[in-house]
Amino acid sequence: MKSIYENVRKKSPLVHSITNYVTAGDCANILLACGARPIMSDEPEEAESITSISDGLNINIGTLSKESVKSMMISGKTANRLRIPVLLDPVGVGASPYRTDTVKKLTKEISFSVIKGNMSEIKAMFSGSGNGIGVDVSPRDRTNSDNFKENINFVKRAALTAGCVIAATGETDIISDGRKTFCIFNGTSEMERITGAGCRLAAMMTSFIAANPDRILEAAAAAACVLGFCGEKAEARMKREDGNASFGVYLTDEVYNLTPDELERGARYEIM
Amino acid sequence: MKSIYENVRKKSPLVHSITNYVTAGDCANILLACGARPIMSDEPEEAESITSISDGLNINIGTLSKESVKSMMISGKTANRLRIPVLLDPVGVGASPYRTDTVKKLTKEISFSVIKGNMSEIKAMFSGSGNGIGVDVSPRDRTNSDNFKENINFVKRAALTAGCVIAATGETDIISDGRKTFCIFNGTSEMERITGAGCRLAAMMTSFIAANPDRILEAAAAAACVLGFCGEKAEARMKREDGNASFGVYLTDEVYNLTPDELERGARYEIM
Amino acid sequence: MKSIYENVRKKSPLVHSITNYVTAGDCANILLACGARPIMSDEPEEAESITSISDGLNINIGTLSKESVKSMMISGKTANRLRIPVLLDPVGVGASPYRTDTVKKLTKEISFSVIKGNMSEIKAMFSGSGNGIGVDVSPRDRTNSDNFKENINFVKRAALTAGCVIAATGETDIISDGRKTFCIFNGTSEMERITGAGCRLAAMMTSFIAANPDRILEAAAAAACVLGFCGEKAEARMKREDGNASFGVYLTDEVYNLTPDELERGARYEIM
Repeated sequence: MKSIYENVRKKSPLVHSITNYVTAGDCANILLACGARPIMSDEPEEAESITSISDGLNINIGTLSKESVKSMMISGKTANRLRIPVLLDPVGVGASPYRTDTVKKLTKEISFSVIKGNMSEIKAMFSGSGNGIGVDVSPRDRTNSDNFKENINFVKRAALTAGCVIAATGETDIISDGRKTFCIFNGTSEMERITGAGCRLAAMMTSFIAANPDRILEAAAAAACVLGFCGEKAEARMKREDGNASFGVYLTDEVYNLTPDELERGARYEIM
Repeated sequence: MKSIYENVRKKSPLVHSITNYVTAGDCANILLACGARPIMSDEPEEAESITSISDGLNINIGTLSKESVKSMMISGKTANRLRIPVLLDPVGVGASPYRTDTVKKLTKEISFSVIKGNMSEIKAMFSGSGNGIGVDVSPRDRTNSDNFKENINFVKRAALTAGCVIAATGETDIISDGRKTFCIFNGTSEMERITGAGCRLAAMMTSFIAANPDRILEAAAAAACVLGFCGEKAEARMKREDGNASFGVYLTDEVYNLTPDELERGARYEIM
Repeated sequence: MKSIYENVRKKSPLVHSITNYVTAGDCANILLACGARPIMSDEPEEAESITSISDGLNINIGTLSKESVKSMMISGKTANRLRIPVLLDPVGVGASPYRTDTVKKLTKEISFSVIKGNMSEIKAMFSGSGNGIGVDVSPRDRTNSDNFKENINFVKRAALTAGCVIAATGETDIISDGRKTFCIFNGTSEMERITGAGCRLAAMMTSFIAANPDRILEAAAAAACVLGFCGEKAEARMKREDGNASFGVYLTDEVYNLTPDELERGARYEIM
């Protein structure tokens, strides 16, 4: 984990995000916090140019529009052509046929390095049976001791089907390339009380795979450990009068202050 | 007030917001703070689907565009058909003919549960004579002891004309369905020093009416008390070096921490 | 500096921003912090109306789109016709031909009062040889003791070429109308670790020139001193556990609390 994170801080990758306007500022700030550099653009006219100068591409459909979907397609293909790692965050897939269709088109035309979503989104994509409501995970899809093994196997199969790393977030994050699987235990439920914890992870994870293009699985896992561990630290910092808005500020602060050595000590995961 | 607020925390309504990009993140976070769940989408292609799975619809014209206005129309009609409460926040109506025309079209085609604006916006809508400049209330429209009765009567008549609840915010919030009127004294002038206090109220109020569809007037009044009371608490929390940015963080924090019992004790209003 | 800043607080200018969605909320809040009033709109349909009621126009191409560029053009021409000061922030110019072309069209059709960018953006505009990558300044373009005189001369010539004030930001901000040049030493490197420090400066600078239309150069310089000095104060306020997100909150807070007298004492600049 340590060397992966050190690479982010050292290489300072430029991440092109085509993302939603709700959490764009938070995503930019967490990229800066972990040592990466953000550029946001969703205009098709410049999609190819912006992706071409970037080290990673982050596609987030949180507030997709017909124009931004055009950009996603152009940028995704450009990234593939130039061998730039691409991540997909299928926010709210299953919430509307338009999101579902868009994700189908994107995955058909673009080769993703990582698809990251909550368990309901991943199920909606790979079994057509996600129970998500809106952009949140459904209680029925949450990973717990009952469905732990079942969910791991599901993510593994999804990774083999998709031919890329799948990162299914939740109380336990399950991240797999189909052969090797990371189960990540870092994190806190507080992260569900702010908007865009998942978007921040997507942005940051893109910078991690951009800085470690030969170790995509490990890089995705390291990013999840960073956000989860920083979530724990941010929660520990909360005073009695603090709420979710302060937590959101602290979460980015903790990433800013996290050293690779601290990550090494704080990361809690199992490899299967 | 207490039972209304408890319903929000219990039912955790999903609120579809078609809103501006300036304060979208703040609106999402205050929805999460009060126990509701946000979904933001302004693409016409999915407007019907997203509204259909939601418990409430929040239409805010803060940074309207031709595309988002299409979504407002589709979503508003969908909500009416499915009997989902809809709130309109006519941000800056009167500032441009396009805003004025859009609001006319929206109110003609859609049956709103609540229209919430500052007094200048409400006057621009219902008397064509608002004195607003930009998105702020005009000093001439502020409710004070001189025009208190006059403004109450104005809001009452507007509610009867519109056939829905009107919430006219200001130092005193006047909220009426034409028969019964709440005058709410909670709040602080500090709320005018942050962007989007009104947008946050609109989002939160939508979750309150979504969780209390049979008590629209009371729910709108309760949301105004929550934001106003939390504004007072947030101001009290400010240290010497804090400014409006910290106040904005504290405001959401206070909503996050507010219990229904505290609301009951802190709400200051009169029913007329 | 003092009287310029007092004018902002006294006149409370309305600033129309056509800006990116990443930092729009931060820009609105810093405008409120310094005593100005924000209005954001990028819909061509209302561009003329919104600019007409404003005291200043801020054009920022951070997340430009075909529609927003139309608004920039209409609003810019409207501002020129009504003699309303206009500022251009050519974010990431040089990062894509579309940005470069858009900036060329804008500067051809619109007479700007101020063009404000980092040194890479200013070089990309006026020598076609900026070394910027993405939206950040290139290390090669940073002003240091080696290239100090050279950069000053470059900015002076750019100002004469453009026929307006050029504000080239960096460790030393160089602000010139071609005859008189301000070198501003306020600021901290921490400002590069948050998203949109430049956007905030653009928004605030627009309010300063709006409130001081007869002293554009001095107003631009004063705004740069305010942001830089507040950056220093915000950094001094940082506790061990604070990071870039807290710094972003403090930066706006410090503007909120800064008095004209404090500015007078804290501004560090030389006139050449």
